[in-house]
Amino acid sequence: MAEPGALDYRSAGVDLDAAERVMEGLKSLVASTRDEHTVSALGQFGGLYAVPGDVENPILVSSTDSVGTKVKVAFMSGRHDTVGQDLVNHCVDDILVQGARPLFFLDYIGCGTMDESVVPRVVGGVATACKENGCALLGGETAEMPDLYDKDEYDLAGFIVGIVERDRVLDGSRVRAGDVLIGLESSGIHTSGYTLARKIVFEAMGLSIDDDFPESGRSVADVLLDVHRSYLRVLSDALDAGLVRGLAHITGGGIPGNLPRTLGSDLGAVIDLASWEVPNVFRVLEEGGRVERDEMLRVFNMGVGMIVVVAPEDADGVLKSLSQSDGPAWIMGEVEAGEGVRWA
Amino acid sequence: MAEPGALDYRSAGVDLDAAERVMEGLKSLVASTRDEHTVSALGQFGGLYAVPGDVENPILVSSTDSVGTKVKVAFMSGRHDTVGQDLVNHCVDDILVQGARPLFFLDYIGCGTMDESVVPRVVGGVATACKENGCALLGGETAEMPDLYDKDEYDLAGFIVGIVERDRVLDGSRVRAGDVLIGLESSGIHTSGYTLARKIVFEAMGLSIDDDFPESGRSVADVLLDVHRSYLRVLSDALDAGLVRGLAHITGGGIPGNLPRTLGSDLGAVIDLASWEVPNVFRVLEEGGRVERDEMLRVFNMGVGMIVVVAPEDADGVLKSLSQSDGPAWIMGEVEAGEGVRWA
Repeated sequence: MAEPGALDYRSAGVDLDAAERVMEGLKSLVASTRDEHTVSALGQFGGLYAVPGDVENPILVSSTDSVGTKVKVAFMSGRHDTVGQDLVNHCVDDILVQGARPLFFLDYIGCGTMDESVVPRVVGGVATACKENGCALLGGETAEMPDLYDKDEYDLAGFIVGIVERDRVLDGSRVRAGDVLIGLESSGIHTSGYTLARKIVFEAMGLSIDDDFPESGRSVADVLLDVHRSYLRVLSDALDAGLVRGLAHITGGGIPGNLPRTLGSDLGAVIDLASWEVPNVFRVLEEGGRVERDEMLRVFNMGVGMIVVVAPEDADGVLKSLSQSDGPAWIMGEVEAGEGVRWA
Repeated sequence: MAEPGALDYRSAGVDLDAAERVMEGLKSLVASTRDEHTVSALGQFGGLYAVPGDVENPILVSSTDSVGTKVKVAFMSGRHDTVGQDLVNHCVDDILVQGARPLFFLDYIGCGTMDESVVPRVVGGVATACKENGCALLGGETAEMPDLYDKDEYDLAGFIVGIVERDRVLDGSRVRAGDVLIGLESSGIHTSGYTLARKIVFEAMGLSIDDDFPESGRSVADVLLDVHRSYLRVLSDALDAGLVRGLAHITGGGIPGNLPRTLGSDLGAVIDLASWEVPNVFRVLEEGGRVERDEMLRVFNMGVGMIVVVAPEDADGVLKSLSQSDGPAWIMGEVEAGEGVRWA
């Protein structure tokens, strides 16, 4: 028994026992993502992964990201089981654009309180998406920092490592003027632009989290929490066949901020804005916030989650293979000499 | 020119131009950590790393962590150039205990404002320590989230990937009863227990950040910002020689929370508390917060940053090689049959 007035970690706001209980509950979730490459050590969370032997000149591709203030929508709605999926899928798409398939993932949660009804649901979302993407959840850290985060809030960051054969790295060098750009539908706002989207929805439009989102037949929470789509499965065949010359994951910065990065030097793109219908969620945000169209295109994906660059002669075949999947694919423009993105 | 009342990303608190400028300024820092394994792609931050060919059965070891609320001390003192070093060194030590040397590192910063006088200094610390540890800074993300973090605050998480030859993995299986425990001095509080330490120093003791820290001849900021020590260099020779049977990085949970994880099943340890002098900073915290000794040992490293397990016949030689370095090393106990840590 501590003497009265004595300080300990719990009185300072950090509960190591709660942390241990939460971690214990996560072990089976994490275990469900393991495969033949994960090497157990001491029953620890893990951290060991054998480099797959079937890649001749293995290049590791790594990325880190967060889901931005999409977590704020999770706080408002009390729904914590999908932001982990957003995080993993976002990271999977980030390394996919360099041609890599995911090997393993680690998550970081900084939070105000180690809430035993919240943290396991967040990590549960992470584990679910890891499984879906064939990626081991190799470790993670949950840091309880009551002085940095509000009591019911957290931030969520992820780290992914994938692998690609050296001569299969997508680095822009394969892209040529005249190549065809195929758009793949996004599943919503994904994880970019939430600070602006929330300001529009909750301030300018004055909506509440449970209100109907205009013209959608769904609630604000439903629409704003739509899970970031992973493009791993739909692109696998085309990547395996070597038919993909470049990929652009449309995140913060929109099409003009992300597409040029995949084109290499001295190449730009012309995009036909009439080639797809901008989804309802973006039209509502544009109108509700009286946002300029250029700003919309710079902040949001506007319905295009991934752009695939293919040779003109392969366009029809790749379009067909991509269209057999869960979301539409369409030809949206082409690569041209020059720089930057031009709208047509 | 946007119409009056129109919303854009900047008015919502996110400044993409500032973000781009900060990132541009970081490129040379990041470049300074590159080595022959980093594969450039498109002048992007990176993300590509060739698996070293000189490891026969390569196991990747990965870990993620933060520096906890040590960042709060950085905010209070306006010193942002060392927390990045803390982060990297902490992560290096975390994978070192499984026998791995670092390959590459990624950092994540979540912040209230993309402050151009702060973010580059934080990442500068990360890059400095990456260089010191022979580790490439392969990427990173800085997310501006004004609704999640206070204006002048940030959180900092890191992600490391290292490599170890499969038959050199330290997994507890080499440890035997009778093995000798060698302690390596910590450089201060490292990165664990800051929520309690700050409560003691700034509330119970009523000190300010620029006050003298008792019996130290240094300021509170100096003492609380001492950089987490990397044990990579001092341990390299002993690891190369195969003389290390186990390693315990003493972080949150202290010696009793971390040492048993390296011992394997059915083994415990006896530690001679009189074998080293607990450094001034911990004695001041203990007294200032009237913290129970057991709680001190569970929250802080108490002057021991790393514990090395060696065979009795190798103890003298290893002790000698470790003592030639920058901090003291001493024999502090031994492995015994049983479980947990016993104080003697």
